[in-house]
Amino acid sequence: MLFESESSTYTYLLADTNTKEAVIIDPVLETVDRDLKLIKELGLNLTVAVNTHCHADHITSTGLMKQRVAGLKSAISKFSGATADIHLTEGDNIPFGRHSLTVKETPGHTDGCITLVTGDQTMAFTGDALLIRGCGRTDFQQGCAEKLYHSVHEKIFTLPDECLIYPAHDYLGQTVSTVGEERKFNPRLTKSMEEFVELMNNLNLPKPKKIDISVPANLVCGLHHV
Amino acid sequence: MLFESESSTYTYLLADTNTKEAVIIDPVLETVDRDLKLIKELGLNLTVAVNTHCHADHITSTGLMKQRVAGLKSAISKFSGATADIHLTEGDNIPFGRHSLTVKETPGHTDGCITLVTGDQTMAFTGDALLIRGCGRTDFQQGCAEKLYHSVHEKIFTLPDECLIYPAHDYLGQTVSTVGEERKFNPRLTKSMEEFVELMNNLNLPKPKKIDISVPANLVCGLHHV
Repeated sequence: MLFESESSTYTYLLADTNTKEAVIIDPVLETVDRDLKLIKELGLNLTVAVNTHCHADHITSTGLMKQRVAGLKSAISKFSGATADIHLTEGDNIPFGRHSLTVKETPGHTDGCITLVTGDQTMAFTGDALLIRGCGRTDFQQGCAEKLYHSVHEKIFTLPDECLIYPAHDYLGQTVSTVGEERKFNPRLTKSMEEFVELMNNLNLPKPKKIDISVPANLVCGLHHV
Repeated sequence: MLFESESSTYTYLLADTNTKEAVIIDPVLETVDRDLKLIKELGLNLTVAVNTHCHADHITSTGLMKQRVAGLKSAISKFSGATADIHLTEGDNIPFGRHSLTVKETPGHTDGCITLVTGDQTMAFTGDALLIRGCGRTDFQQGCAEKLYHSVHEKIFTLPDECLIYPAHDYLGQTVSTVGEERKFNPRLTKSMEEFVELMNNLNLPKPKKIDISVPANLVCGLHHV
């Protein structure tokens, strides 16, 4: 788990300690040197850089990593609209050594949001679908609050209570939660769908600061940012 | 693991999931409400709040927590000079349910710095003695660089290579390391003692911003801060 403080983004590096095959989730442009240094020190063979969605708040380092790591493939949801080597859909597997991540489509924050679950269901990387005691905004398109509610209840809250939740962001210094905790204490997702939609449609959030730069850049792996 | 962004401090909450007995390490004044809310949600019985040392960069919430959690005891090294319910020395145990933390004295950053190691030696909370790819400053008193070097080499680097390192701070968004990684890649502690002392004595760091407020407050569990 690695943190980028400007956008409060968590980047996750997962590896098989035997085969050294590794996957990185949601790497950020500002911290690409830190991440590549760690990967080199640990002697990892980074095979896939996967984004949980096309981010609006920061630029991904996926494209830059591909230029600097031979053989690295990018992956993102088919429904993100972004270019990538691998377009993911429900049930797809991303293997790394004897481990793997399974794709669950969890649209709502964006149409191309996915949650990545380890094979043993002990960890779920939820992107901006489910945050610790929160969730991603759903005001980018109409009808998204309903979609997010269904995604979380049907795809994430059906995982085991002990399954650890690792989100794409946290703004309060929280680093990890569990499915059981969020099912009980998430102030938004414990509401009825009607109350949730009402709440989400009236948050009146400002536009993300970097959206006009980040989204076009992230549609092409973060490479067209200059 | 919880993070306070102003001072880049990590607070750790450890609990026995069966008995619900819990210990908190290095809680920070600014995030006391967040921490107490989580403790309440999880139904934990917080028995000890322990500080790895008398911090110079932030005010502890230990005293305030004691006012708000019945039966909570504070703990800190005997050599910290700070008041507390429990004064810790080498080899002391802090039990919580079927788990415990063992005290290792690791002076250098301050005379009262301790490292807390879980009973199974899978986790070490190193305070400011050993940081990820770094270490705490040693310019508060003469001869401290040598002390820190011995502390890390004799008390921390002798733990199993797989033992996870959880420091009190990180300024680059790193969250965890291992003894093996630090033994190989820590740019300071891999040097000879002579080179280390030379380096540490010439860092010319500015005085911590809050030292004149934090240290007097932390000597009395953070209570005299207003």
